[in-house]
Amino acid sequence: MDLNQFFDLRSIAVVGANDREGSFGYCAAYNALQCKGRVRVYLINNRKSSVQGEKTYDSLSALPELVDCVLIATPRDSAVEVFEEAAQAGVKRAIVYASGFSEESGSEGRAAEDRLMKISKEYGIPFIGPNCIGILDNIHKLVLLGVDATTFDMKKRKTGVALIAQSGSVCINAMKAEYMGLSYIFSTGNGNMVTIDDAISFCVDSSDVRVVAIYLEGIKDAAAFTNALKKAARIRKPIVILKSGKSKKGAAATASHTGNMAGSGKAFESVFKKYGVISVDSVHELLETAHLLSVIADDMPRKGGFAFINSSGGENTVCADLCEKYDIELPSLNETIIERLSAILPSYGTASNPLDQTVTLSTGLDANLEILNAFTDDSFGAIVVGGQSSFYADEDVAKNGDCTDTEKVFDTPWVRYKMQEHSLALMVAPPYSGVANLVWRRNLERFGIGILAGGEMSYSQIRDLERYAEFCKTYHLEEEADISIPTTSMHGRKTISRSEVESKTELARHGIPVPKQAVAKTEMELGGICRKMAFPLALKIDSPDILHKSDIGGVKLSIDSLEAAREAYRDILRSCRSAMPDARINGVIVQEMAPPGLEIIVGISSDETFGPMIVTGLGGVFVEVFKDVAMAPCPVSKMQAAALLRSLKSYRLLAGYRGKPPCDIDALATLIAQVSEYAAAHKDSLKELDLNPVIVYGERQGVMAVDAVIVEYVP
Amino acid sequence: MDLNQFFDLRSIAVVGANDREGSFGYCAAYNALQCKGRVRVYLINNRKSSVQGEKTYDSLSALPELVDCVLIATPRDSAVEVFEEAAQAGVKRAIVYASGFSEESGSEGRAAEDRLMKISKEYGIPFIGPNCIGILDNIHKLVLLGVDATTFDMKKRKTGVALIAQSGSVCINAMKAEYMGLSYIFSTGNGNMVTIDDAISFCVDSSDVRVVAIYLEGIKDAAAFTNALKKAARIRKPIVILKSGKSKKGAAATASHTGNMAGSGKAFESVFKKYGVISVDSVHELLETAHLLSVIADDMPRKGGFAFINSSGGENTVCADLCEKYDIELPSLNETIIERLSAILPSYGTASNPLDQTVTLSTGLDANLEILNAFTDDSFGAIVVGGQSSFYADEDVAKNGDCTDTEKVFDTPWVRYKMQEHSLALMVAPPYSGVANLVWRRNLERFGIGILAGGEMSYSQIRDLERYAEFCKTYHLEEEADISIPTTSMHGRKTISRSEVESKTELARHGIPVPKQAVAKTEMELGGICRKMAFPLALKIDSPDILHKSDIGGVKLSIDSLEAAREAYRDILRSCRSAMPDARINGVIVQEMAPPGLEIIVGISSDETFGPMIVTGLGGVFVEVFKDVAMAPCPVSKMQAAALLRSLKSYRLLAGYRGKPPCDIDALATLIAQVSEYAAAHKDSLKELDLNPVIVYGERQGVMAVDAVIVEYVP
Repeated sequence: MDLNQFFDLRSIAVVGANDREGSFGYCAAYNALQCKGRVRVYLINNRKSSVQGEKTYDSLSALPELVDCVLIATPRDSAVEVFEEAAQAGVKRAIVYASGFSEESGSEGRAAEDRLMKISKEYGIPFIGPNCIGILDNIHKLVLLGVDATTFDMKKRKTGVALIAQSGSVCINAMKAEYMGLSYIFSTGNGNMVTIDDAISFCVDSSDVRVVAIYLEGIKDAAAFTNALKKAARIRKPIVILKSGKSKKGAAATASHTGNMAGSGKAFESVFKKYGVISVDSVHELLETAHLLSVIADDMPRKGGFAFINSSGGENTVCADLCEKYDIELPSLNETIIERLSAILPSYGTASNPLDQTVTLSTGLDANLEILNAFTDDSFGAIVVGGQSSFYADEDVAKNGDCTDTEKVFDTPWVRYKMQEHSLALMVAPPYSGVANLVWRRNLERFGIGILAGGEMSYSQIRDLERYAEFCKTYHLEEEADISIPTTSMHGRKTISRSEVESKTELARHGIPVPKQAVAKTEMELGGICRKMAFPLALKIDSPDILHKSDIGGVKLSIDSLEAAREAYRDILRSCRSAMPDARINGVIVQEMAPPGLEIIVGISSDETFGPMIVTGLGGVFVEVFKDVAMAPCPVSKMQAAALLRSLKSYRLLAGYRGKPPCDIDALATLIAQVSEYAAAHKDSLKELDLNPVIVYGERQGVMAVDAVIVEYVP
Repeated sequence: MDLNQFFDLRSIAVVGANDREGSFGYCAAYNALQCKGRVRVYLINNRKSSVQGEKTYDSLSALPELVDCVLIATPRDSAVEVFEEAAQAGVKRAIVYASGFSEESGSEGRAAEDRLMKISKEYGIPFIGPNCIGILDNIHKLVLLGVDATTFDMKKRKTGVALIAQSGSVCINAMKAEYMGLSYIFSTGNGNMVTIDDAISFCVDSSDVRVVAIYLEGIKDAAAFTNALKKAARIRKPIVILKSGKSKKGAAATASHTGNMAGSGKAFESVFKKYGVISVDSVHELLETAHLLSVIADDMPRKGGFAFINSSGGENTVCADLCEKYDIELPSLNETIIERLSAILPSYGTASNPLDQTVTLSTGLDANLEILNAFTDDSFGAIVVGGQSSFYADEDVAKNGDCTDTEKVFDTPWVRYKMQEHSLALMVAPPYSGVANLVWRRNLERFGIGILAGGEMSYSQIRDLERYAEFCKTYHLEEEADISIPTTSMHGRKTISRSEVESKTELARHGIPVPKQAVAKTEMELGGICRKMAFPLALKIDSPDILHKSDIGGVKLSIDSLEAAREAYRDILRSCRSAMPDARINGVIVQEMAPPGLEIIVGISSDETFGPMIVTGLGGVFVEVFKDVAMAPCPVSKMQAAALLRSLKSYRLLAGYRGKPPCDIDALATLIAQVSEYAAAHKDSLKELDLNPVIVYGERQGVMAVDAVIVEYVP
């Protein structure tokens, strides 16, 4: 769905315009009237001759022209009627504000929304909503919102971020955040016709949008969604997302809020990571970070590893502590920088990162500028000026030049720094969140100086920026396979487990190393099989009905002679038949025992939204107690698999822990890539795949999947 | 040192008063002059007859009276002279602002400070500083600060929090944080005479202080410090601390900032935990949380587990996600509450925690009040009203009653709720940090309604409040042993390791279970020893010079006959003598092999500030890769030891993981308590103690320390 058609309007009609302050009809009419001159506005109300001092019309057919877009501000049932009337009249776009549609549990709401969809398709009239607050277009200065938008001053408000939100209250927050440059606001509501994915795609394409901010509960079309993310990654347009419903209770809360595909929080996070999406946890951070990125968009940090400058010992110490807490790298200074800084600092100062430039130097334009210029080389991605206390945004900031005075702003070291030909990205952190005075802020932002959110949130923003800078440095589209999104819904489909033998045979066919195995159906067969294998062997019952084999004596390990194998064979059959007389028994699996090594879990779990996800981690307690697992959408390349392994805390055990030789990480990464490709190839049928454990041996000694289960959807 | 004498002043003199704006002398004089009427003020400057329009005196001896306190605002060397002059004149209190004393690396500064200390002791004249900005007393309305204090409006400013800070910039921040009720500000500087510990003790005792906020780089006297914390815990006066220098780079930064005992960050945290201190990571949170606690001090949550109310589906979902992120419990609603809420909520609403009271109900005093009142029972410690978007503090908040109108505030549901006879603690979270309009905030705070900091910081505050509430509920002084703080400094002292045999013998004497062991000096002795023990045995070389026994063949395990023991004995001696011909060899340790079990590390590490700290965790990778260790100051009771174990992530392995039987946690807790008592009893000599591993068996089957090393300071 191309959304450009919603931003090319010459005339609009508000149906249900009224004088009841706060209602959709009042607000939509009020907002529309503010846009007169840029668009022709008609109000429709068949019970009053005027609304808000403006003449009204009885119906759409009474209008002097066929309008481009109709804003439907009546309650559900009437809204459906108006929509049909508009469609029949030939209107080509609509916004439906009312709620009570598919987001409610009853069947009436669902039926009403189905009706909207049917009309829309029949007449070719796309609509935004229902259950939304509409759209705001700050490029063409059109406010098509059904809520009070008086906090948004279209004349003064800068552009920059496009906000797409599945929650009206987030849109309202953004309008109220005066500092925030906004190009568009989209409230897509239930969004089954104009979807959130359409909105994202539009914003990524739009040259009027520098950054896309999204409050996301769920998506409609995983392929459209990931395509938009991919496009954004390719052109390095930052996307910031607050994905809500990531927690268990949060997911439950979301389920009752909109009718979207929720997916698992972890699957979303792994998709975000693949495409460099900046993921945040609060509305405040969503808005602040998106705006920050739009300010520094022309001058983004080219790498992680920033230089920090503070003006007091106390704040410098807190800065170092918070960098550690937020996992922010503090690159050391090289000799050249140390020399340059030492020449400026007083005798009791120390050239280090973070740098305490000392109270003495916190005043003085030249010294400050010299300090900024000392960080000239390529060691740093950006400079961050603290801090905890050196200046207050909401009052006289004489120490750093009076940034609230538009003329005097040129006397600040920061602005002087940015006016030079070569400069690093520069960010300033107010001491507290929320204190940045608007005039001060805008005066600095004009020069591309980013204003951080203040307090601890600054550090969370810095970490996100560093990661994004590293992503931009290393992301190469040509290496990236698309996510294997299922073409059909798996919802409610039955599943079936393949037996261990079948599972391993299947995987072996796809190159996964598994132990030599065969099924003995008779004791005679057993002899022949054993002679072709190397002892020690493992024998296990082969039955589709027996899941917990060892619980009923169905497993015998470390068998080191034919004699012992025969005995084990008889024992296994006897105990299984006695424990589960009705179980279907194919025979006994005979398998070469794999020598011991490091045990890894490699698995696939199919996410209902994004399809197969590969999951890996060290076996046993590492996964279960420490939740030390890494996840990625399938397929992953061998290089991505290796990166996935490096992201594990327990990676140290793979890399050679306490003098032990390193494991064959190369072979493990190959196996993970192979499994992910298998899963991608079977995205429409595979539900789960478990290799538990995969045994990893020393370097160049390979890996072995000693147990496997494949669970598939029944076709 | 009793600080009351600094708050009982009738006359003060400012030495070094001048007209240079921003200097210590200017600010101290300016501030002092604002206090005229409450205190007699004299300015001293021997080069000008008047300063800031006020007559000056040439020297202290020229004053018409002997002043109570002299504020010394001259540079270092002159300050020492003035201090001596004041002491000789009989002045009994002083504040020295200048820096350049012991906090600097050179010997001159140290000498100057030694001189101040000597004079102080000789004449009995206590002083605050040097390297400080002084004190502010908002109870008696005296500002004895050497910095600009015009942002602090003494007439309007409320009381409540005492701020003690080893950083002037934090004090300045607090003055600027208008919302914050402040009783006192102490900048103790180098604080070798009037120490930070004195200031804390004074504030804990003062009935004018509801909450103590501390920016702490290090302490002077661990006993005084912990005594003050204990007093505060006993009377349930909250203490909030930002301990800086917790990270590696932060500690390095602190070291160059003040001359305090830094201690390890982890040791401080474990001491804070013992006494219920609320530990925060940013200046913003320090000030916000201290103020919040002072507002709700009369009506603190009596337990953890709060009820959350939001006004939109989106914010409710984000609330649930953030509760999970910040490890905040969300107790479920009981049947009674569900029934009450269901009667109020619209049909599409769901009674749950967090509660989306729906946009419909976000207006309306009665419905809101009814919802608050529904949470009546004892299931909840407090109610938190979101949220992300339902109201904005800095503008018309008509939806929830206009809290900025002092009259109309009675029409808000929150105030109505708190005016009832029985109510839970009530907190309101603005959507963003920093948006709480001051009038709005004060109007609500008058009724004991706490205003959270907004954004994610609200959640960090809620978690801290919950933990503090639980601490207050369970802290019983009588069960708490004092921390075993060393009576002498260990700094630079030499250490010596006891041999394994000695270490285990020593521990066995104190009740720690160790395997049966003996040293065989000859092969004949070996025979006798073996006959008294149960095979299998372990043999190890016993030498003070051989640390890594197994590396040179000094260990033989699983010996199951006398014959094998003899052979092992000879092998061990031969290889050790050949590998280290000069090593002193006492003989060979013979030890019964302990059967396998779960391996735990129990250790003692002596912190330079707080003395022995007990550390425990599961052996091997759990400690080394996942840093899953728990620490507490010694001694700990058996109950505290059990709580320490429960705080481990890997506790699940002790409690019986995946169907394995639970371990003998009781015996392990006993051992930990015994070790901690041993360490406490040897606090002045013990440097380290390592039991690695302690093997833990099944329930009621005990524990066994199979290896031990004691490292002591040489007397």
